[in-house]
Amino acid sequence: MNAEILSVGTELLMGQIANTDAQFLSRGLNELGVNVFYHTVVGDNPGRLQRQLRQAWERSDLIVTTGGLGPTEDDLTKEAVAEFLGLPMELHRPTLEAMERYFQGIGRAMTPNNEKQAYFPKGCLVLDNPNGTAPGCIVEQEGRIFVVLPGPPRELNPMFENHVRPYLLRRGDAKITSRILHIFGMGESEAAYRLQTLIERQDNPTLATYVGQGDVLLRVTARTAPDEDPEQLLAPMVRQIEALLGDVVISDDNETLPEVVVRLLSNQEKTLACAESCTGGLLSSMIVDVPGASDVLLEGAVTYSNEAKMRRLAVPEAVLAQHGAVSEACARAMAEGMRRTSGADFALATTGIAGPGGGTPDKPVGLIYAALASDSGVTVETYHLKRDRALNRRTTALNALDMLRRHLLQKQP
Amino acid sequence: MNAEILSVGTELLMGQIANTDAQFLSRGLNELGVNVFYHTVVGDNPGRLQRQLRQAWERSDLIVTTGGLGPTEDDLTKEAVAEFLGLPMELHRPTLEAMERYFQGIGRAMTPNNEKQAYFPKGCLVLDNPNGTAPGCIVEQEGRIFVVLPGPPRELNPMFENHVRPYLLRRGDAKITSRILHIFGMGESEAAYRLQTLIERQDNPTLATYVGQGDVLLRVTARTAPDEDPEQLLAPMVRQIEALLGDVVISDDNETLPEVVVRLLSNQEKTLACAESCTGGLLSSMIVDVPGASDVLLEGAVTYSNEAKMRRLAVPEAVLAQHGAVSEACARAMAEGMRRTSGADFALATTGIAGPGGGTPDKPVGLIYAALASDSGVTVETYHLKRDRALNRRTTALNALDMLRRHLLQKQP
Repeated sequence: MNAEILSVGTELLMGQIANTDAQFLSRGLNELGVNVFYHTVVGDNPGRLQRQLRQAWERSDLIVTTGGLGPTEDDLTKEAVAEFLGLPMELHRPTLEAMERYFQGIGRAMTPNNEKQAYFPKGCLVLDNPNGTAPGCIVEQEGRIFVVLPGPPRELNPMFENHVRPYLLRRGDAKITSRILHIFGMGESEAAYRLQTLIERQDNPTLATYVGQGDVLLRVTARTAPDEDPEQLLAPMVRQIEALLGDVVISDDNETLPEVVVRLLSNQEKTLACAESCTGGLLSSMIVDVPGASDVLLEGAVTYSNEAKMRRLAVPEAVLAQHGAVSEACARAMAEGMRRTSGADFALATTGIAGPGGGTPDKPVGLIYAALASDSGVTVETYHLKRDRALNRRTTALNALDMLRRHLLQKQP
Repeated sequence: MNAEILSVGTELLMGQIANTDAQFLSRGLNELGVNVFYHTVVGDNPGRLQRQLRQAWERSDLIVTTGGLGPTEDDLTKEAVAEFLGLPMELHRPTLEAMERYFQGIGRAMTPNNEKQAYFPKGCLVLDNPNGTAPGCIVEQEGRIFVVLPGPPRELNPMFENHVRPYLLRRGDAKITSRILHIFGMGESEAAYRLQTLIERQDNPTLATYVGQGDVLLRVTARTAPDEDPEQLLAPMVRQIEALLGDVVISDDNETLPEVVVRLLSNQEKTLACAESCTGGLLSSMIVDVPGASDVLLEGAVTYSNEAKMRRLAVPEAVLAQHGAVSEACARAMAEGMRRTSGADFALATTGIAGPGGGTPDKPVGLIYAALASDSGVTVETYHLKRDRALNRRTTALNALDMLRRHLLQKQP
């Protein structure tokens, strides 16, 4: 099956955003064995959109559109597809009711232009959207499949995974099953280099690397007959990857680093507290983002000022005077102080210069310390990061979590 | 002048990379007053590439290609453009000499296929590439301009800035200037509804709405002669928007809510501390993400357990026993306690049930309180949120920041 991705949105043509939807969909479609031959972007312009739909019809079996499903006059993709296929627009009552509930829920009035989002080309399959107000849809006509998806990635990605992927799979006779491994502490290119032989000789299962949220993802995908057990193909490949990469494989079941840490703490019935300077709450927030975090996280402190470090964490004034707030000694005192005052089994602490300002020749931007306090003492790691403020903070929080992960794994029976 | 961007590369169609070149070029071209009407991506396939060149010739004045300039057989863009325009390929001696020096410099032998990179369509303008081995070129024919650029952003971006931008500027055209407004507390559809008359009668400046990171963005774009002041067009439109939307316009200069709050605090020389339960550090982290946050944020506490609420914030045990941790009384006590113990001018507090678990009939998932303590007392707001855990937490943090923003604006002289 040959496909093209047709993205609709002036914001793409203005360069406000990159077309990450096309990237995401291309990966997903390629994994399903669909050849993607074109990406096209057009603006919110009815004439140009009709011409692109005509061209897509002539050259592709599967046309996936992204964007242009919002409530405004500019949002015209669904209407354009209906017009192109000669279908009337029809009210989809379940969508209207879901939207009414949604607006009631957020305590905002539904405006008349929202109602437009409940109309769909007659006879289509409506794809519900729990992450926004614009559902997608699928229409088939004369052997072509039109898949109409919303633009925002947090709406499009789950809609593809939960609706479009299964829909396309049902049409094929093969079953596709994936396992996702998470790697932390090794870049994508090094991981790909070490896995080169597996990647090169891949056939079934296939192996692909992706950049995640501060980690690297490996997707192992097996193609089997519907009644065959995919684990027979997946498990040996996962074992080979783990043998080649070692303990940088933090999960073979699609868990993020915070999820792994919360699970390990929970299994070992241990508690954690965080003392943050440069990460400024991000470390605690990553943990709290995992459902069930309340069982393991006792508390966190964002001790941004020296005064707060002394008052909340009992960091000795002498440490700050002699070594400064960005120092190994301060990181150690923060972790120790937090562990003692919170009563948690473990305390993590971060301090450093995230940038862009605040650097000195002695302590340049990107110099960061992370400390882990436990019943066996305190360990401190030093990092020299080179990214922007947001990424330096994120990397620091993840490194601190990985210190704890490695510690917890050693203690595991 | 109407333009399109034609990117050549199978790696784009496989989803290995996002098309950030198209984003970068679109921004640059729009700033020069060039309308970008299409982006297209094709693979390394001669037939499909020729068809796209033909289509581009028919509909665009300026065609910018990216990628396909490397030394391998697959790299065929320059050759395809020459073939399409009926031009022979000619050796460009300065390029060959530069490449010989380059390879000498890195101590590697130049392979025969590198020589291919020194051949160009006859009569073109060669654009040198100090950041790689593949120069670009510009060819004009029958009123069309073909600009052929390398794919890697670190080669393409400077080549555009140093060669293509000056080339297009010399040809003269209109100048495009945008202002971005941020809206918080009103959805995109309601904002578009209220601005309907402005959006419908738009010509110059134009107005468009976008969904941001928890806020809504409005882009006002003016087209002027190169020597004209765009503010004469932009300022009246911005004033009209502010009159129609009121104080949900949090910035008319592309500031996010955390940036606005840090600026207002800094201007008023006030300090802040945060006491977080359900947001779990996210509120502090959003503030710390703004450079200069250290001047205004004294500290934060993630008091996830009842014990931490009592010990760190002096929340009375009676409040927790009578009302529970998720209550207006607890939010109030957290904000008061944080303000008193930190010595900050303001304290924000959050408590609630972010989900997915933890709800009861009395206190369902999504019930959240935010409190602001100042020298004029404590105010508490109650929210009933309906999204997933991550979004409920994010919305809560932003709502708390907006409480403080509104308070700070009232106090402004």
